[in-house]
Amino acid sequence: MRRIRITVAYDGTEYHGWQVQPGLPTIQCALEGVLKEIVGAHVKVEGSGRTDAGVHALEQVAAFSISNPIPPPNLEKAMNRLLPRDIRVLTVAEAADGFHPRFDARAKTYEYRILRAAICSPFERRYVHHHPYPLNEARMFELAPTLEGEHDFTAFSAADDRDARGHSKVRHIFSSQAFREGDRLIYRVCGSGFLKHMVRNMVGVLIEIGKGNVQDFEAHLRPGCGIAPGPSAPARGLFLINVEYDPRTPPVDPR
Amino acid sequence: MRRIRITVAYDGTEYHGWQVQPGLPTIQCALEGVLKEIVGAHVKVEGSGRTDAGVHALEQVAAFSISNPIPPPNLEKAMNRLLPRDIRVLTVAEAADGFHPRFDARAKTYEYRILRAAICSPFERRYVHHHPYPLNEARMFELAPTLEGEHDFTAFSAADDRDARGHSKVRHIFSSQAFREGDRLIYRVCGSGFLKHMVRNMVGVLIEIGKGNVQDFEAHLRPGCGIAPGPSAPARGLFLINVEYDPRTPPVDPR
Repeated sequence: MRRIRITVAYDGTEYHGWQVQPGLPTIQCALEGVLKEIVGAHVKVEGSGRTDAGVHALEQVAAFSISNPIPPPNLEKAMNRLLPRDIRVLTVAEAADGFHPRFDARAKTYEYRILRAAICSPFERRYVHHHPYPLNEARMFELAPTLEGEHDFTAFSAADDRDARGHSKVRHIFSSQAFREGDRLIYRVCGSGFLKHMVRNMVGVLIEIGKGNVQDFEAHLRPGCGIAPGPSAPARGLFLINVEYDPRTPPVDPR
Repeated sequence: MRRIRITVAYDGTEYHGWQVQPGLPTIQCALEGVLKEIVGAHVKVEGSGRTDAGVHALEQVAAFSISNPIPPPNLEKAMNRLLPRDIRVLTVAEAADGFHPRFDARAKTYEYRILRAAICSPFERRYVHHHPYPLNEARMFELAPTLEGEHDFTAFSAADDRDARGHSKVRHIFSSQAFREGDRLIYRVCGSGFLKHMVRNMVGVLIEIGKGNVQDFEAHLRPGCGIAPGPSAPARGLFLINVEYDPRTPPVDPR
């Protein structure tokens, strides 16, 4: 069997997230569907992680195993010909045998885009959270790095995930920054991994800080703080930017 | 009655063009629908011109007459609250009594976007014509200005519009340029007015020039040339950029 690693971009607007759900359009389901057409058998596609319904990706990483000898460039062309236009395979490469896009990931970067302009352009509407109301942005920029470091992120986890036993809610955030890019307030976070809804909940609380409703961001990081989840920021503003792997296990390029 | 002038941006993907068509979603229909809700009566909205199904606008200009005293900023907010998110009213202003967005227009600018990259990003897919195949771009850049000046554009008109008698097909093109912006080949044209399908047909023939299938662009401009319409480039790449009016009849700002 060959192990194949792909990077995928998608506009998540029309999808119920990454993971296969019976009867609903998902990214994983779309990829598995076209691979079945190409190689004539079910192929399980594993992603670096699940993205929620409506969340976008610039460079999601996924992998699968096939025995079919189709060269990577042809596989890329065949997949893109069959996929809907809101999902694009950007690269296809041979990977090391045991490569697993989730377990081998060292870091993931997400970006959340808040549009501060009075009017949201029709061309941006699917890709930003439009919030034209007053926010203390300086306070948001100042407090965003509070999340950096190794913390228990229970207070930022999804409500339906909170009581799961035996699953550590400790994650390591390498960088957490908020800043302006023109009309957009950007929140960018890079970490070892993320809990379900974690980035959207972090942005939700950050917006509450901007509104003056939350003063103490750090309180959310105290183990057992019992703080109810902040409002989740809407999915449409969130992009998975990229996933990083150990350079010692690069994709194999046989050319 | 007050005469109101508005500028409107829209993502044309989900619409059957500007003009009201029974039973189909159109931009004019959407605008008239929300005005009816706001002022409680039918209001006829006139545009600077029709855009085809799927064509976008950054700044379309339209006008209508109402007796309701609602101030322009409130009217803008009310319209945007009721409109779908792929249509946005950018400005609302009082206009001179007889202002007509079509008859008073002095110039319109359209832009056509051809993506030359191998893969079309999911986030661009609605807003470019993806043509990754070989084109002699230098030849396209060189010949695009051929269309400048006053010409009979019958060979670029819509097939179903060609035999209409008594309608002059002569238009004045002020500038016609093709150039690169990164991965995009842009065609930008400014003129006194445009026939139905004219810009998409000009781009279609320009692409044929790039492919080497058409040598003589000027032949299309000879009256009675009888050349069949070149292939129409897809609507999704076309944007109405703006509409210019005589500065002697500016919108009235009562503030």
